[in-house]
Amino acid sequence: MTESFSTLRVNADRMHDSFIHQALIGATGDGGVSRVTFSDAHLAARNWFRAETESAGLEFHTDGAGNHSAILSNDGRDKTLLIGSHLDSVPNGGRFDGALGVVAALEVLKTVKENRITPGVRLEAIDFTDEEGSFIGLLGSSALTDRLDPDALKKPRGGRDGLVEGLARAGLSEAGFFTAVRPKDSLAGYLELHIEQGKRLERTGTNIGIVSAIVGIRSRRVSFIGRADHAGSTLMTDRADASLGASAFTLAARELVMRDFSNCVVNVGKMDFAPGAFNIVPARVDLALEFRSPDEGEFDRLEVALAACAKEQAARFGLELQTQRFENHVPNLMSAEIQKAFADSCDDLGLTHSSLISGAIHDGQSFDGVCPMGMIFVPSVDGASHAPREFTKWDDCVNGANVLLQTVLKLAA
Amino acid sequence: MTESFSTLRVNADRMHDSFIHQALIGATGDGGVSRVTFSDAHLAARNWFRAETESAGLEFHTDGAGNHSAILSNDGRDKTLLIGSHLDSVPNGGRFDGALGVVAALEVLKTVKENRITPGVRLEAIDFTDEEGSFIGLLGSSALTDRLDPDALKKPRGGRDGLVEGLARAGLSEAGFFTAVRPKDSLAGYLELHIEQGKRLERTGTNIGIVSAIVGIRSRRVSFIGRADHAGSTLMTDRADASLGASAFTLAARELVMRDFSNCVVNVGKMDFAPGAFNIVPARVDLALEFRSPDEGEFDRLEVALAACAKEQAARFGLELQTQRFENHVPNLMSAEIQKAFADSCDDLGLTHSSLISGAIHDGQSFDGVCPMGMIFVPSVDGASHAPREFTKWDDCVNGANVLLQTVLKLAA
Repeated sequence: MTESFSTLRVNADRMHDSFIHQALIGATGDGGVSRVTFSDAHLAARNWFRAETESAGLEFHTDGAGNHSAILSNDGRDKTLLIGSHLDSVPNGGRFDGALGVVAALEVLKTVKENRITPGVRLEAIDFTDEEGSFIGLLGSSALTDRLDPDALKKPRGGRDGLVEGLARAGLSEAGFFTAVRPKDSLAGYLELHIEQGKRLERTGTNIGIVSAIVGIRSRRVSFIGRADHAGSTLMTDRADASLGASAFTLAARELVMRDFSNCVVNVGKMDFAPGAFNIVPARVDLALEFRSPDEGEFDRLEVALAACAKEQAARFGLELQTQRFENHVPNLMSAEIQKAFADSCDDLGLTHSSLISGAIHDGQSFDGVCPMGMIFVPSVDGASHAPREFTKWDDCVNGANVLLQTVLKLAA
Repeated sequence: MTESFSTLRVNADRMHDSFIHQALIGATGDGGVSRVTFSDAHLAARNWFRAETESAGLEFHTDGAGNHSAILSNDGRDKTLLIGSHLDSVPNGGRFDGALGVVAALEVLKTVKENRITPGVRLEAIDFTDEEGSFIGLLGSSALTDRLDPDALKKPRGGRDGLVEGLARAGLSEAGFFTAVRPKDSLAGYLELHIEQGKRLERTGTNIGIVSAIVGIRSRRVSFIGRADHAGSTLMTDRADASLGASAFTLAARELVMRDFSNCVVNVGKMDFAPGAFNIVPARVDLALEFRSPDEGEFDRLEVALAACAKEQAARFGLELQTQRFENHVPNLMSAEIQKAFADSCDDLGLTHSSLISGAIHDGQSFDGVCPMGMIFVPSVDGASHAPREFTKWDDCVNGANVLLQTVLKLAA
């Protein structure tokens, strides 16, 4: 390939038709879609992908993990450049999260194909199974990269019965997931276009966000333990009230992160009170804590600081403290080469860009250590996501697709 | 009756035997009892009451509300002086709460009977149904005083199915509850001995607490409403996190009560988070708030102050606020005449006493406006209650029973 393709653009109208078609599948009537993994709507969206692939004259492929691919016919080229995202959604989610990346990937392949370009690698647009984790987050991509833990299939967060039934509905088997692994050396890279799901691009008026890292996630159950007492006859000063430690920690953890860890976020998503009655002083509060950092060293410092904060608040109210570890997802750095290719493409297209950290997990995470990966964001209006009001202006969607196209052409040259 | 009875004492050994017998029923092996209303253990304790009554030569009576009574044979005396408490317990409760008052009331009647005293009123020791509210708090006493709301039977907090099944097990019917009403003018008064369930008597080394008032209880559901957002991609400063308002209110409400309302208590017994996931910023926290005051005017001032506090904390974090009213129990004043009779009895017996407010609800509450009522407390070791470690020294139990006896003799003279 030569520089002569730098003026190439996706077909914005065709891509819009395609986007609208998929957004009608599982539409909730309020601008959103509900396409929980293996639901009727999700299966219908998967069928749409296949039909769209075949009508574009692309090769359709599915693997044992249910990942659906459109392939630009492969004349014996060894390496595959994957361009993907996902068609499943959270319950009552938005119509851009995931779907925009799939539609754009298909449009890039259509554009390359109709311009009779012969890229130096096999190009594959891919719709990954269950990115959102109705059952197991990043299910399809982790199967493809040999990162799927067999135990995860035994205790999916969406419930084992639902998974078994869903697999049957989708014509998949558990054993099949382990046949979806691709040899590492077959992969040239992984690219993804996604909505930002935050306000940084909108606030700064930037066209494209080039992801430098995907944050790691650590989740912990932090328990403050006091003593159940009669909520009437026990003096205020005689109580060991677990709610006080939990409340003080929730406020202090936020202050800590905002003051000392500006690249990180923290969330207390839930508190479970025991015994949990109006008239009993809470003996125990289990707090669902999650914190995210793009840097492993900073992550460790944050964890130490949060633990000290919990200890301080427990001591302040005469409580015991217990901490249980749940997930540990390490932060992932994006390929410097792909980041540069994205930036050059933006410059070529006259689009402003900035480097940012993805606070959300994406399928790219599964490719860490497997092949180079890169990701771009387009602006989310008001930062909304995982909700019907999720919205990205169509011009921004097209900009993202053109950056993806130009970057594919650079990388596949 | 004359002053000649002022040297009369209960039979401490007989009362101890009686106490130990009942404490074995539903014993949990760790010093506690579990006698949830209408459970096998509770029904067995009720049978024990009947056997104890009959073997003492007292008249046994049961009403449509399942209240069990021992009556000192009534030679046509019109008015009844009730002396009561309850044999039901909270799950895994202690062996003194309620049971001590029933055992002492029986012992008072036995002592009066064996001394061939003819009191000026009909004496009745009573075990009320479901004081603890496994189904409906103060169920038996409110039926007796015509305070039972028919709707309460339709939606008991222990569940409708459990109540229906329990009534059948106990041989009771819903309609029966409304036949338990006693004419107001048949009641001379209501007396109760109970453990303090707090540390005030123990801390001051006082033998007897004479209750001046039972607190009122108001319970509210206070909801802080923000916005669900992605807990990774949403900047800390862009969140409307309902947990922050709920946490700040929990801490501030405690400060407020400790600083400005020293007669009152407040409890946040539970918080329900929605959506309630590690990785979603909480959109809503429903907080189970209960506060108690012995004085209606102070109660109103506290409610206004708590509402202002909730509003301030909601505004601080950009949240909406909703408040829903649940229970409203008004504070009840004890009869001045009965308080004086208790104090005189303590003085006669050489026991120290102090006036205090009951932070807990008791069956006496049902008698507000129906007849004079009075209540005494004996010290709780370490203030513990509603738990197996609940304990009162036996000498203190006997002191309480003697004060009850002497007061009955004074009031029934």
